[in-house]
Amino acid sequence: MVRLRLSLELDYEISQPGCDFVFNIHAAHTERQRVVDESLTLNQNVQWRVETDAATRNRYLRLQGMPGPMRLVYAATVELQHHVEQPQRIGEVPVAQMPADVMRYVYPSRYCESDRLHKFAMREFGQQWQGYSRVQAIRDWVLQRTTFTSNTSNANTSAIDTLLATVGVCRDFAHLMIALCRAINIPARFTTGIDYGADPALGPTDFHAYVEAYLGGRWYLFDPSGTAIPMGFVRLGTGRDAADVAFATIFGAVISSAPRITIEAVPGSDGQLVVPYHRTEALSTDG
Amino acid sequence: MVRLRLSLELDYEISQPGCDFVFNIHAAHTERQRVVDESLTLNQNVQWRVETDAATRNRYLRLQGMPGPMRLVYAATVELQHHVEQPQRIGEVPVAQMPADVMRYVYPSRYCESDRLHKFAMREFGQQWQGYSRVQAIRDWVLQRTTFTSNTSNANTSAIDTLLATVGVCRDFAHLMIALCRAINIPARFTTGIDYGADPALGPTDFHAYVEAYLGGRWYLFDPSGTAIPMGFVRLGTGRDAADVAFATIFGAVISSAPRITIEAVPGSDGQLVVPYHRTEALSTDG
Amino acid sequence: MVRLRLSLELDYEISQPGCDFVFNIHAAHTERQRVVDESLTLNQNVQWRVETDAATRNRYLRLQGMPGPMRLVYAATVELQHHVEQPQRIGEVPVAQMPADVMRYVYPSRYCESDRLHKFAMREFGQQWQGYSRVQAIRDWVLQRTTFTSNTSNANTSAIDTLLATVGVCRDFAHLMIALCRAINIPARFTTGIDYGADPALGPTDFHAYVEAYLGGRWYLFDPSGTAIPMGFVRLGTGRDAADVAFATIFGAVISSAPRITIEAVPGSDGQLVVPYHRTEALSTDG
Amino acid sequence: MVRLRLSLELDYEISQPGCDFVFNIHAAHTERQRVVDESLTLNQNVQWRVETDAATRNRYLRLQGMPGPMRLVYAATVELQHHVEQPQRIGEVPVAQMPADVMRYVYPSRYCESDRLHKFAMREFGQQWQGYSRVQAIRDWVLQRTTFTSNTSNANTSAIDTLLATVGVCRDFAHLMIALCRAINIPARFTTGIDYGADPALGPTDFHAYVEAYLGGRWYLFDPSGTAIPMGFVRLGTGRDAADVAFATIFGAVISSAPRITIEAVPGSDGQLVVPYHRTEALSTDG
Repeated sequence: MVRLRLSLELDYEISQPGCDFVFNIHAAHTERQRVVDESLTLNQNVQWRVETDAATRNRYLRLQGMPGPMRLVYAATVELQHHVEQPQRIGEVPVAQMPADVMRYVYPSRYCESDRLHKFAMREFGQQWQGYSRVQAIRDWVLQRTTFTSNTSNANTSAIDTLLATVGVCRDFAHLMIALCRAINIPARFTTGIDYGADPALGPTDFHAYVEAYLGGRWYLFDPSGTAIPMGFVRLGTGRDAADVAFATIFGAVISSAPRITIEAVPGSDGQLVVPYHRTEALSTDG
Repeated sequence: MVRLRLSLELDYEISQPGCDFVFNIHAAHTERQRVVDESLTLNQNVQWRVETDAATRNRYLRLQGMPGPMRLVYAATVELQHHVEQPQRIGEVPVAQMPADVMRYVYPSRYCESDRLHKFAMREFGQQWQGYSRVQAIRDWVLQRTTFTSNTSNANTSAIDTLLATVGVCRDFAHLMIALCRAINIPARFTTGIDYGADPALGPTDFHAYVEAYLGGRWYLFDPSGTAIPMGFVRLGTGRDAADVAFATIFGAVISSAPRITIEAVPGSDGQLVVPYHRTEALSTDG
Repeated sequence: MVRLRLSLELDYEISQPGCDFVFNIHAAHTERQRVVDESLTLNQNVQWRVETDAATRNRYLRLQGMPGPMRLVYAATVELQHHVEQPQRIGEVPVAQMPADVMRYVYPSRYCESDRLHKFAMREFGQQWQGYSRVQAIRDWVLQRTTFTSNTSNANTSAIDTLLATVGVCRDFAHLMIALCRAINIPARFTTGIDYGADPALGPTDFHAYVEAYLGGRWYLFDPSGTAIPMGFVRLGTGRDAADVAFATIFGAVISSAPRITIEAVPGSDGQLVVPYHRTEALSTDG
Repeated sequence: MVRLRLSLELDYEISQPGCDFVFNIHAAHTERQRVVDESLTLNQNVQWRVETDAATRNRYLRLQGMPGPMRLVYAATVELQHHVEQPQRIGEVPVAQMPADVMRYVYPSRYCESDRLHKFAMREFGQQWQGYSRVQAIRDWVLQRTTFTSNTSNANTSAIDTLLATVGVCRDFAHLMIALCRAINIPARFTTGIDYGADPALGPTDFHAYVEAYLGGRWYLFDPSGTAIPMGFVRLGTGRDAADVAFATIFGAVISSAPRITIEAVPGSDGQLVVPYHRTEALSTDG
């Protein structure tokens, strides 16, 4: 069991009334991710509510900010009890056995044009053994061919753009890996968290985007950008691609500051301190 | 109340074993669309099941066909009790009041790149009164600038492609209208049914794609291609765009024939025959 | 007659040997643009040559820089004797009468996808009177729908991108106008010069990109970004689009500084000082 | 010396007056390609002229057809005296030594987006020996990853589309190879001819598109689609990409029939019959 303590501090300068925010910064409740405690502090005296989307379990904080500075601090303690499996024992799920609510992650989405990559992906990965190792091969292929470089992509950048540009940030690595998985009929989704364990040389602790692929009846974690430690990922949101799970969607004129984020391992409810590390086993936070 | 009797006949020639099908041809169950009776006939002796997606109420027929000819006949009687409203009384829903499960229809999707159309749409429609009439104006704009032409688009064609090409089929009209709505923060979704009332000169009765926009707390019907009569639409599936609600998604090598479809108005449970017609009021099949 | 005195100062820091440069900073020699005097100063003791492309008359300065700082100063005095015409007297040139070397400017190019815009442009401009006023209408349409905004576009941005984004810099305005002209079979080309007369609030004097359209047997000047005074444009290069006439194409690792540019009207060889102004007549620097 | 006899027969049904045609069906005159005799027969009594573009030597037949059937027969005898070289003796040309009129073939064009493929191509081919063999490697890579399939591409299809789709016709193979060459600074151009030696199973003799790459101071022939015999290519036109050298560009409403084409080797002026064959040496029809 891993217990993590995280905090997020977000600052905005709002310049007009009626500015709506949809945040996806609350840790998700799943069978294997338990939110032990959490708190939200807001400097403005406005109404807010947290809604849980039934299909994804994403928790959306919604509020309307007032003109002036707005500061938001979210803190939580989360316990993860991963499902751990030997990669070689995990096969792909035949289409006939994919649950209805998994099927949507096999279809193309805004930033993951898997339809256009079908033949390309079949040539690269079509002949490989159908299981976890094939998804791992896609992950390695993306990591090997793409260079992590800030400010090379923007909000329009899609998987195909990244395939050609060969540069990007974690979001772009994730989109490309997802598109290639779907192109060969493996359901894959875009998941957000914190870049636990990232090299400080890459900058301060930040939000992170990674991939979950549906294999052997579960969603397994993959980190195509290779910058962080999956065992330390606390799931905030999951969706088709970045369009679904921006940590903040803002409807109005706002100046944002860089988020200030901390995350650390703390002793679990069993009294033991488990510090996340790179594991060779497959990990899932799924039920 | 409108009662419609429809039948679909689909023929395939399957050339390999293990060919998976996901059909979305069953009429949806909604508060205002009641399936009075339905039947499914399959010439192959294979297992099939119908699953309902919780988020969309789409009903997916899933089966694995065997090599050889496969014929599928679905027939149903459906009763529609539309919610009818005067357009001028219907306003847009502020973001703050949009339910969580509606929000996803405001984000871009594979074939509806609303993010890239934001400024374009703001210039065209940003200054108009915020209500049903604005969505109607988008619908009219799309219809006016696009010419219905078969074989001008394909499975990769997106809203932007259609905006530039100015030609397409019902699917393309729907994608463009949806993208423009989302670009100005109006939730819109892609819905499939039968082209009730279409001019026979356009070809035999076929599947149809149209739009539902979220206004005044409901999903209202729009037919951007202008080829059919919305009052006669029986909803089969609804989703982000065509990627979600293909009437048939096939994993394997198959030769398809053109579907043979019939739909007609019959007397309702109240004994009255209501033949769908073009109405000026806004219609919804939503709760 | 307009006489202009211009100077360009370019600074680079070269970090590797064998770094090739192709500059297009020399004023072109045309029938109506005479280079009275010019000079080139280079701080590095390297060979250089100026080549004139026969098809475009562009003059390319070519050299291989050495590691270290490289400074280049080009200065010239140029006399322009414009062809001046009343717009209403200028018609379009029928395809049958277009010279072979003009035809290439009616075909699509990297940043001007006129093929994809054909139907779109026909709807907007297809019914208008075929002459200078139609090109002016395209120019006004582009100017009206596009907002001059720095750092919104990059080296990949094409005419279609700008049509959708509705923002850009002079290069983007030019690409969009060119693509729309070609889409209705009017030859148009991308021309570079200095932004004579630009509002200092937009920043220091800079290179500029504008459009020449082939009408009535000549290439007439248009400034779709509306930021400068066409009468003061000294032509440096002309081509299909920005791919052809970058002011500097660099093969190697180099750090560039912003160019420092001056341009001013001086008394002509006839002793008269003509200061360029916004004219309502059509202008050409062509023979 | 190879002597070839070719004939082209083109049929159109013109439905409106004032329909302009630009044909590029005349064999080019180059230092090593001599047109021994040629004839043009036209069933309509209209004026026509053949213009030679100075920059490319392309010969354009221009005419305005009248309503009704139009038939055009072009026949020619052409002698080719190839420059033949051992591949291992051919190096790339450093940018500093590229002639001005070659430079344009290193820049991106409508269907060859080499700018977007720069990093992708550097990863694949950046480390290879800089010479003919590197271009051959690009040619083999394209041929290996792309399947010749009719009706999979259209007039909008670009190199990037083909890279992803992995299918296309000769035009698409050529665009992809050209884009990859330019992406690593090797000038490459799109050339048209007849598919001499193509397998009859692929259909009747047709126009062909292939590639010329600038190496060792000459333009060498490459056939990325691998369907024909380069030694038998009679050059019709050459340009940036297909936008420049369509065999027929038509401005008006016309119904076209498939061209009927023949080509055969005949005894040369030296009395010898040389039948083109697949050679391992590098070939150029350049001066």
